[in-house]
Amino acid sequence: MDLVHSALQGDRLALARLLTQVENETDEGRAALIRLFPQTGRAHWIGVTGAPGTGKSSLVNQLTLHYRREGRQVAVLAVDPSSPFSGGAILGDRVRMRDLAGDPGVFIRSMASRGSLGGLAQATAAMAQVFDAVGYDILLIETVGAGQGEVDIARLAHTTLVVEAPGLGDDIQAIKAGILEIADILVLNKADRPGVESTERALHSMLSLAHPTRRVVRHHGRWETVNEAALPTSEQMWIPPIQRTVATEGKGIVELIGHIAAHAEHLRRSGEWAARERARLRSEVEALLQKALMARFRAAVPQAKFEAVLQRVHERSLSPWEAVQLLVDGRWG
Amino acid sequence: MDLVHSALQGDRLALARLLTQVENETDEGRAALIRLFPQTGRAHWIGVTGAPGTGKSSLVNQLTLHYRREGRQVAVLAVDPSSPFSGGAILGDRVRMRDLAGDPGVFIRSMASRGSLGGLAQATAAMAQVFDAVGYDILLIETVGAGQGEVDIARLAHTTLVVEAPGLGDDIQAIKAGILEIADILVLNKADRPGVESTERALHSMLSLAHPTRRVVRHHGRWETVNEAALPTSEQMWIPPIQRTVATEGKGIVELIGHIAAHAEHLRRSGEWAARERARLRSEVEALLQKALMARFRAAVPQAKFEAVLQRVHERSLSPWEAVQLLVDGRWG
Repeated sequence: MDLVHSALQGDRLALARLLTQVENETDEGRAALIRLFPQTGRAHWIGVTGAPGTGKSSLVNQLTLHYRREGRQVAVLAVDPSSPFSGGAILGDRVRMRDLAGDPGVFIRSMASRGSLGGLAQATAAMAQVFDAVGYDILLIETVGAGQGEVDIARLAHTTLVVEAPGLGDDIQAIKAGILEIADILVLNKADRPGVESTERALHSMLSLAHPTRRVVRHHGRWETVNEAALPTSEQMWIPPIQRTVATEGKGIVELIGHIAAHAEHLRRSGEWAARERARLRSEVEALLQKALMARFRAAVPQAKFEAVLQRVHERSLSPWEAVQLLVDGRWG
Repeated sequence: MDLVHSALQGDRLALARLLTQVENETDEGRAALIRLFPQTGRAHWIGVTGAPGTGKSSLVNQLTLHYRREGRQVAVLAVDPSSPFSGGAILGDRVRMRDLAGDPGVFIRSMASRGSLGGLAQATAAMAQVFDAVGYDILLIETVGAGQGEVDIARLAHTTLVVEAPGLGDDIQAIKAGILEIADILVLNKADRPGVESTERALHSMLSLAHPTRRVVRHHGRWETVNEAALPTSEQMWIPPIQRTVATEGKGIVELIGHIAAHAEHLRRSGEWAARERARLRSEVEALLQKALMARFRAAVPQAKFEAVLQRVHERSLSPWEAVQLLVDGRWG
């Protein structure tokens, strides 16, 4: 039985198995990725990130419903936070996406973090490529939290939604300033709650710091300050809109879908779409290269020799840096 | 002028410069690390981590004051969250540690994240080694947040304090379950606030899941279930205590210092101290090795060839995995 062939024919069980092979980096998974890769590059990858409690899952649910009504094939990749030690996902079996159960145009997959988040970004990219190749044209990548790891995952997407909600404390706002910079669209969810005005004001002021509306450009060989709005559309920067939503009631979703479409249009017009793809593929090659070099090295150096060098570091007769020079130069004997 | 010599003599300006060299991974910094490494291994590395708003900085301040009263030399390494794109620290110039200004037995250093958190853990380890070598015997490593990156940094420490505070939402509690597993001591700060009882109850129940008090052990060749408390002290597991504090008023700090000392004692008695050092040095060697292998590879492969291979990936005529095989095998021509 050929999983790739069956998955391309729309066999969901085959797709699920294939995703597991890819997630576990088996030889079969790797071979499948090589076969599928030429057919990638068609889907719109949309990242949805934000702190716990902002209602990301409901939002992803609503986006999926609306895209389905437009006849799009939607894949959801939910990256759960998990224990770095036990490898188990924390949130457990959430009953979610009930509205979508049984719809053959939707595929939902959860991933648990195991080990490093760097590895998680790699696995997410690989699984996203599978969805892309087998014909899902909308790919929602949902990540929880707002740390560096989540930023790395958000970087995979063409369009990144950062979800906020009213009533989170000032400290939380402060730490989120970093993630604001990766937002293509800001979603102010739970907008029926008290405090929505002040949260929106705070987001606006943070945005205006990050995105000036006047810009210095080179014009006829001279530097001039221009109003962003006076530039031709193709040269305008994208200024992240803030969209209020109440995901549990489906409010603001149509407008949000409009912003997502406008962002895709902006990316294509400005050449940024290709630039983002290029940057993503470059990081993917670099990460795989690093792994391959390490594997080749470990295969060449006898385990006992490697341990003997580590022992000398532990005894502090050799510094870590000296140990590496010795190993790399093959002077471990 | 020899920065290493001057820093070892207690010259603070030389130490500050040396730390900058090490943080920026200059040749001088690397040479200094090699010289200083044999003198490391004496300090107690204490990690202090937790979500924003839990009062970590005040706690670190108080711990420093108390250790100074005991005549210990204290170094504080504060790892700030920062924008992954601009490289600038978010929290800005906090006026902090005022109580400690002018004390020559204290050295405070802030680090900003630049690029990847993996790199940050490496830089933190290197700077911690400098403090260790020049004679600081208490090293407080303060990290903000609770993501994977912070976990990696916490892993550097012998003893990790996880700081909580009453009144954080349920969602936040859920995401923190992961970080509980790295806690050697739980600090419930701001313990004068409402909700302290229920937060402590929640922490207790999470802890009891993670740390059973009955354990299956091999005894006279048979497996038996024993009560943890019945084991000889040297075989007992460490069960993280929960310590209430009000850092701004100095409450609970003496008790917390007692728990930290007890944990160090436990580590030494059980052999865990050496095991943690060994694991840390192993990761450090592996991370440096990965970098060295990549640098050697990039020096061997002409840049134009590398870019040509990437271009084929971008055109999707070559998958990332095939590209890496081609590069590693030297078949890039």
